[in-house]
Amino acid sequence: MTGAARTDAERVEGVNTAFYEALERGDFEELATLWLGDGEPQVSCVHPGWPVLTGRGEVLRSYALIMANTDYIQFFLTDVQVAVTGGTALVTCTENILSGGPAPDDSDEPGPLVGQLVVATNVFLRTPDGWKLWSHHGSPVLAESEDDEGDDTAV
Amino acid sequence: MTGAARTDAERVEGVNTAFYEALERGDFEELATLWLGDGEPQVSCVHPGWPVLTGRGEVLRSYALIMANTDYIQFFLTDVQVAVTGGTALVTCTENILSGGPAPDDSDEPGPLVGQLVVATNVFLRTPDGWKLWSHHGSPVLAESEDDEGDDTAV
Repeated sequence: MTGAARTDAERVEGVNTAFYEALERGDFEELATLWLGDGEPQVSCVHPGWPVLTGRGEVLRSYALIMANTDYIQFFLTDVQVAVTGGTALVTCTENILSGGPAPDDSDEPGPLVGQLVVATNVFLRTPDGWKLWSHHGSPVLAESEDDEGDDTAV
Repeated sequence: MTGAARTDAERVEGVNTAFYEALERGDFEELATLWLGDGEPQVSCVHPGWPVLTGRGEVLRSYALIMANTDYIQFFLTDVQVAVTGGTALVTCTENILSGGPAPDDSDEPGPLVGQLVVATNVFLRTPDGWKLWSHHGSPVLAESEDDEGDDTAV
């Protein structure tokens, strides 16, 4: 594609990919540009197992904390689905994550790598500067499969 | 308030409340009317610990399954925050859940009650029939508090 004629869905998927690549590189400055600015509406973010974080300051601080405690992280995205309507887009995807913490003590080796399966709902808004993240909600996948009958997990 | 002059945020919060009340009553018909119809954009739903469900059929079937396995469920909503921009609204809230499954065997007593702490991000779209659910994402809160330092939970 030569720059012209990209659809909104393609642009949104591009920003969604850039979001995860910024996390992989630990690029806080880039990450900060991908979220909506300080005006309305207010951004929100849920990391897996965390409560809701609200507002740009709280959300970006959480990423600074996560980056400080993550030496290595890689996202293999699968099941990426993009739905666009007017100036809003909603992306769902599965984050197949491989990550490692800081090295223990004096070792030069990175900490042990851990695999995680997380699903995310990411909401984007169209702005004069392109599509920006309004909300990220990630959660651990605990169920074996959709076919599990009798699951009484609450809604 | 006498019906006039309700703000969009108030209307959205009303539909968000109706969503949880329909779940409490096990009112599948009402629940089905609160979600966007079969047209675009496609709806999505993540129950706590589940993978992503996509499309009205898959989403509504999951609620039928949950209702069939839930004898009692009550939601105490806290931290409800509503952000509206144009025709889209985003609600975050904490679902303090008390639920019970079917009675064991022949007993007339309901099953044991279980408490759960879940956070949700709910996205609504404005339609000619009012605000409708586009996406629900609920996830268990595992962290003790936002102040936990050194949490290396992935993003």
